[in-house]
Amino acid sequence: MAIEFCGHASVAETIGVEPSGDSFNSIRLGPDNRPFNPMVNAGAIACSALIQAKDPSGAFERIQSCLSDFAGRDLAVDEDVYRSESETGDRNRAIAWLLRNNQVLRGDVDAALDVYFRQCALLVNARDLSVMGATLANNGVNPLTGRQVVSPLTAARTLSVMVSSGMYDYSGEWIYRVGLPAKSGVGGGIVAALPAQVGLGTYSPPLDELGNSVRGLKVCEEFSSHFGLHLLERQGDVKSAVAAEYDLAQVHSHRDRRPEDQEILERFGDSASILELAGALNFVSCDYISRKLLTGKYREIQIFDFRRVSGMSAAAAKLLSVMFEAMIDEGTRVIVTGLPGDSFTAQTLRRYAKDDVLDATRSFETLNDGAAWAEDQVIFTHGGFSQMSSEIDLREQSLLRDLTDAQVATLAAAAEMEEYRGGARIIQAGLPGDSIYFLTQGMVSVVLDSGVRVATLDAGTCFGELVLISREEPRAANIISDSPSRCFRIRLDAMDKLSAEQPEIMEIILRNLAGLLSERLRHANSKIDALAR
Amino acid sequence: MAIEFCGHASVAETIGVEPSGDSFNSIRLGPDNRPFNPMVNAGAIACSALIQAKDPSGAFERIQSCLSDFAGRDLAVDEDVYRSESETGDRNRAIAWLLRNNQVLRGDVDAALDVYFRQCALLVNARDLSVMGATLANNGVNPLTGRQVVSPLTAARTLSVMVSSGMYDYSGEWIYRVGLPAKSGVGGGIVAALPAQVGLGTYSPPLDELGNSVRGLKVCEEFSSHFGLHLLERQGDVKSAVAAEYDLAQVHSHRDRRPEDQEILERFGDSASILELAGALNFVSCDYISRKLLTGKYREIQIFDFRRVSGMSAAAAKLLSVMFEAMIDEGTRVIVTGLPGDSFTAQTLRRYAKDDVLDATRSFETLNDGAAWAEDQVIFTHGGFSQMSSEIDLREQSLLRDLTDAQVATLAAAAEMEEYRGGARIIQAGLPGDSIYFLTQGMVSVVLDSGVRVATLDAGTCFGELVLISREEPRAANIISDSPSRCFRIRLDAMDKLSAEQPEIMEIILRNLAGLLSERLRHANSKIDALAR
Repeated sequence: MAIEFCGHASVAETIGVEPSGDSFNSIRLGPDNRPFNPMVNAGAIACSALIQAKDPSGAFERIQSCLSDFAGRDLAVDEDVYRSESETGDRNRAIAWLLRNNQVLRGDVDAALDVYFRQCALLVNARDLSVMGATLANNGVNPLTGRQVVSPLTAARTLSVMVSSGMYDYSGEWIYRVGLPAKSGVGGGIVAALPAQVGLGTYSPPLDELGNSVRGLKVCEEFSSHFGLHLLERQGDVKSAVAAEYDLAQVHSHRDRRPEDQEILERFGDSASILELAGALNFVSCDYISRKLLTGKYREIQIFDFRRVSGMSAAAAKLLSVMFEAMIDEGTRVIVTGLPGDSFTAQTLRRYAKDDVLDATRSFETLNDGAAWAEDQVIFTHGGFSQMSSEIDLREQSLLRDLTDAQVATLAAAAEMEEYRGGARIIQAGLPGDSIYFLTQGMVSVVLDSGVRVATLDAGTCFGELVLISREEPRAANIISDSPSRCFRIRLDAMDKLSAEQPEIMEIILRNLAGLLSERLRHANSKIDALAR
Repeated sequence: MAIEFCGHASVAETIGVEPSGDSFNSIRLGPDNRPFNPMVNAGAIACSALIQAKDPSGAFERIQSCLSDFAGRDLAVDEDVYRSESETGDRNRAIAWLLRNNQVLRGDVDAALDVYFRQCALLVNARDLSVMGATLANNGVNPLTGRQVVSPLTAARTLSVMVSSGMYDYSGEWIYRVGLPAKSGVGGGIVAALPAQVGLGTYSPPLDELGNSVRGLKVCEEFSSHFGLHLLERQGDVKSAVAAEYDLAQVHSHRDRRPEDQEILERFGDSASILELAGALNFVSCDYISRKLLTGKYREIQIFDFRRVSGMSAAAAKLLSVMFEAMIDEGTRVIVTGLPGDSFTAQTLRRYAKDDVLDATRSFETLNDGAAWAEDQVIFTHGGFSQMSSEIDLREQSLLRDLTDAQVATLAAAAEMEEYRGGARIIQAGLPGDSIYFLTQGMVSVVLDSGVRVATLDAGTCFGELVLISREEPRAANIISDSPSRCFRIRLDAMDKLSAEQPEIMEIILRNLAGLLSERLRHANSKIDALAR
């Protein structure tokens, strides 16, 4: 709290961070006349005095409120304990006057001591201590209230001093045996914290000769050893930073394209690669990612999906920046997806990555949007989109492949041409289907009732075709026209009539439908393989 | 090395683990007459003496070989440095005699000192130091040679003493600013290690007044701060421990079942749940898993897949054991898959989990095998498998659904009944397909040329049906008869003949095929959703 309220420089010049080798209530100061560290009485008094000097009348309420935020509930003072401390704390008075003599404490000694005695009398139980520990372990965010009580850096600094000096003269033995940053109090409490994992609180007043709770020590040692919580016994797995890796020849976006464009993707899609990242990215996981990319040649397009990334350290952001830069220098187009601009991860990236590198990357809200854009590039580069603006002939429909021109004409004669304005709902989810639609111009999307867009269809593709398999089934999703669009719509009864007259038409269409589904299944299985390496 | 060669008890009674507060070459011992810790001269001499006492003639070679294993190359002695150390090391001689006076060193003082002087003269460079650090960071396994140099526990103990005392009197400041376990040497080297992430070595002789390399300190501080390597600034993500979660109604095993059994799975498959775990499991990730399971009711069958689990702490194993036990007590059948018995993870689980709990769980080599077994249970419980031993009528085939009895009879008349012994290859990958097969008795598997079994088919299902879509395509996989089996085989030419005479038969079959593929696609997409939450 002193670091955040009074500034790190002022705390650092007032209080050291070395273990003292003396007992908790020693009056001896460090070689530079500062208290050795804030975990022994001299340092704690200096700390209270810093806060009191900055806010003479409100210091105690400030401390009370901050510690209450740590505990996640309002903490009260035990007035009896406060009075007794205040009446009998002569040794602490001596320490305070010595601090004043050394210019460490510069303000009103009695007022500073009053703040110190009062905060020493704040009532906590073991549960409060465990929540306070968890708040330190959780980068300063109280895990119960979700409130950021101190910054991540302040939490790490506090844990550091707890490691070196939190258990008085037992600190070396403690880190050796228990391996948790911890702070002992002569009231009989211990608060311990394992970063990103757990907070632990114990309370039992009988103390050993060093001032640590006898039972607290035993419990913490047993608990840490039983559950393997030692800070330095760590197993990591950098590989879990990459959830999936594939290219656009193996897995497509949810955009149905004309057969000739689809074919370009099958042939050239390996020029665009996708890495789906996951978890909390740090130095070593980003190092792993960059080595992984370096083993091959950089692709023309590289997509990094962040949807499942839960956090990013400064190191990760810097390494990603260096990696992006190297790729961009080689002519690779770098795409970032699934990273909302207001997310903490995006903020970290903006803060630590080079601006010109970020400017040169392209960002899409979803992986699917990014993949569809990359596909567009691949198709365009390889001569696709030849007739994008004109109307697509029915004969180019995959579903109608292998039909003779005469058969297609027969089908067209049985169809109705429909036009939709942008935003129109062509098919409504939940209603039984009665038609197949062949999109000849414009673009439509498959949209769930929840509003989620699951696929986009280009002119030259069809929709509603599953009525051919099961005509009673209600439609699974809405079809919305993204732009003004035109469709050939063939009703099932017209289809039935046609089928009775020319059964080979239906046979060919059903065979094509099975072929389309088989192709989609192949892509789906390819995605499963990529996701479940 | 002393811990492993001489035993932890003997080291612990000889050398402490508290910071001394004195300089590296202090002759002052701790309150119990032991050296404060092994990181200052007194402790290091005591350490060498322990090893020398246990192996009087081979001690130095032992140390040289162990340190060489740490560095991953053979380290040599600089004889000039050794002679100079040996001739001028009077202060170290004094320390050794004081240790002998205090019964800490009990053997031959000159011989112990000779071992100490020699090991002080082993030549390393910054790269060696970084590999040594990486070995400590990597649970005692040299990451370049893959050799286990010391046990994970010894590595953690060493890192602990490095945290409290490795940087002499600067240790508190170091952990505060740099936050890495580290050991400084007055030769000008520093070795630092971040567990499960990185080893760091620096070498530059000019020292500050505390005995630490001036440039080494600066580089380590800059490097740690630039890349956010502080031990206590950690972000975690417990959620990445669960890669996917689904039940057997959403996703099926790769076993094709008869339509009525398939239907039972659709209705009752939610009684069997699957959790695919991933990464290095620890206390907090297993706590997350058990809370996740507790939010619902335990299912009748719970599968835990470990294929992507890269490691497991003792705590994880204990928590899993408690969780398994609670589930088994509630009547849940617990299945473990993808955990080979000889893997380190399986060994950890066997070591820390209760035997009777493990005895009550069932293990399968692959998730697919486990899921297939669970499906069998669900189907059996709900009245399936009614005709497992008898021959399945063609009319029960999904592909022939909606055909009249007369149409099925026509088809059967065009088919040949074939019998295969167990192990026979019915279809060979790579050859063009010419028939569809309806399995009426026995079981067959879809096997890739690599030997991987990708699916198993029950009597009542069909295979080779994709020739109906694309007859030129070579078969993608082999079909091997798992047991004696019988099939109706219909050749494509017979099919064509039939189709010309009765086109409605082909239309119905193609519609059914599209329906089957559409169903498989639905399950594949369901699995993708589960894997990519």
